[in-house]
Amino acid sequence: MRNLDEATITQAVLARNSSTADARLCEVMTSLVQHLHAFARDIKLTEEEWRSGIYFLEQVGKACSSDRQEFVLLSHTLGLSTLVLAQNDRKPSGCTEATAFDVPQIHNATVYDLGADISAGLLGAKGYMHGTIRDAKGNPVPSATLQVSQAGGGLNTERALLQADQLGRYFFSTVVPQNHRVLHDGPVGMMLTALNRHAWRPAHLEFVISAPGYKRLVTQVFREGDPYLDSDAVFGVRSSLITHWAQQPPGETPDGTVSRDPFYTLDFDFLLAKA
Amino acid sequence: MRNLDEATITQAVLARNSSTADARLCEVMTSLVQHLHAFARDIKLTEEEWRSGIYFLEQVGKACSSDRQEFVLLSHTLGLSTLVLAQNDRKPSGCTEATAFDVPQIHNATVYDLGADISAGLLGAKGYMHGTIRDAKGNPVPSATLQVSQAGGGLNTERALLQADQLGRYFFSTVVPQNHRVLHDGPVGMMLTALNRHAWRPAHLEFVISAPGYKRLVTQVFREGDPYLDSDAVFGVRSSLITHWAQQPPGETPDGTVSRDPFYTLDFDFLLAKA
Repeated sequence: MRNLDEATITQAVLARNSSTADARLCEVMTSLVQHLHAFARDIKLTEEEWRSGIYFLEQVGKACSSDRQEFVLLSHTLGLSTLVLAQNDRKPSGCTEATAFDVPQIHNATVYDLGADISAGLLGAKGYMHGTIRDAKGNPVPSATLQVSQAGGGLNTERALLQADQLGRYFFSTVVPQNHRVLHDGPVGMMLTALNRHAWRPAHLEFVISAPGYKRLVTQVFREGDPYLDSDAVFGVRSSLITHWAQQPPGETPDGTVSRDPFYTLDFDFLLAKA
Repeated sequence: MRNLDEATITQAVLARNSSTADARLCEVMTSLVQHLHAFARDIKLTEEEWRSGIYFLEQVGKACSSDRQEFVLLSHTLGLSTLVLAQNDRKPSGCTEATAFDVPQIHNATVYDLGADISAGLLGAKGYMHGTIRDAKGNPVPSATLQVSQAGGGLNTERALLQADQLGRYFFSTVVPQNHRVLHDGPVGMMLTALNRHAWRPAHLEFVISAPGYKRLVTQVFREGDPYLDSDAVFGVRSSLITHWAQQPPGETPDGTVSRDPFYTLDFDFLLAKA
């Protein structure tokens, strides 16, 4: 292992990594080194570019904090998250598709009663969403927990915790979701700018739905007609999750109040897979 | 670009990245996305592994500081640095090989007179190194600047600045270099442990040599017989740079002092390429 050059370095690294007792780690690292080296060879990576890449990765790491996952955002914007999700997301037919990885339940969600207004100060047209949590056969799942996240103008993400009733029904009001940009004041935002890409996500509500005996579902419900449905900065849109917020004339709303403005309604059922 | 799946996500990302005005950036990103996705497909990267990878990269980023380049160390230990250097290092035949990227001159080097002892407190057998800085044809290059770095027990890296004389000659004394480990108390060290790899580098002195009109040379002079020459943790050894520190009996040393112990001498010329 002296005089390593372009032709021999990859095999030398693979040989060095081959003595780990963990067979899966060895497999992962073998593939990683091969693809990393193939990338550097394909483009004949220069010293200056290597430096820029190292610096970029450092900055991505430094931008990460308990509130911000810049490496996850990088993975999203490079399509890696969607790929990993697609090749692992083996839901039974008919179940609601996941658009994001399973996540630990967050701790700073505000608990609301069913039917409450969860908009928490976000501005926009009033919307009423309701539906039923069901199993794959369409039977109601009682008392599921729903965590609803919504990004508005700004990028404040409000998180609301609701519990469906014994018949699996949930309902709440909020502002109709608006399109918004991912965090773009960091290194990933600079990358998007350099690539002449926008940072917009189509309007959606995000749901984390859990019930005993069912696989937790992390998904997003998009709004029909959004101009970014075909250019989501993080490649997350699925047709089955594009929904129509129906405009209603002024008058009585689903929660019994009277609106002097038009408002919107959406009926959407979530079908959970067994755990 | 809806309903992206395993089969379609890569092309979708490439299409999105294709509108940048920077042709080279587009080429680099196209290759990067293809190889990144191919890696995830080849090993069928799982959600949990994806999370571990993201976490590892975050930790590498957080370990970086002005004193520590953990991403560079990662690149070294994965053989990427050696590959990039090999495919860009086009030195004229006969010139001393580079083993590391060109680096900015450091600012905390101590200036020494020619012939000085630069060991700065490192313990070990006394060694006297001398030689001439030459051009590719073997003609002396006058007044080159040499920055010499040496890692000893511990990992204190002493940096000494010397200037060769008008005839290109340099000489100094120090302790004969010892093998030592790269920084291994961080995420890269954990990776090496998981891969059942050691963190040792063979004994060497590192030189950054510059002279007006010549390409700056960053190289390492290794010590013959070191047990890690064939398993350098960062894949940096070249046969042309393995040198013999000759043991000398007690008596007069090259700097005119008398040693009661055996000491070592090394004669090595550096041949610089034209800038």
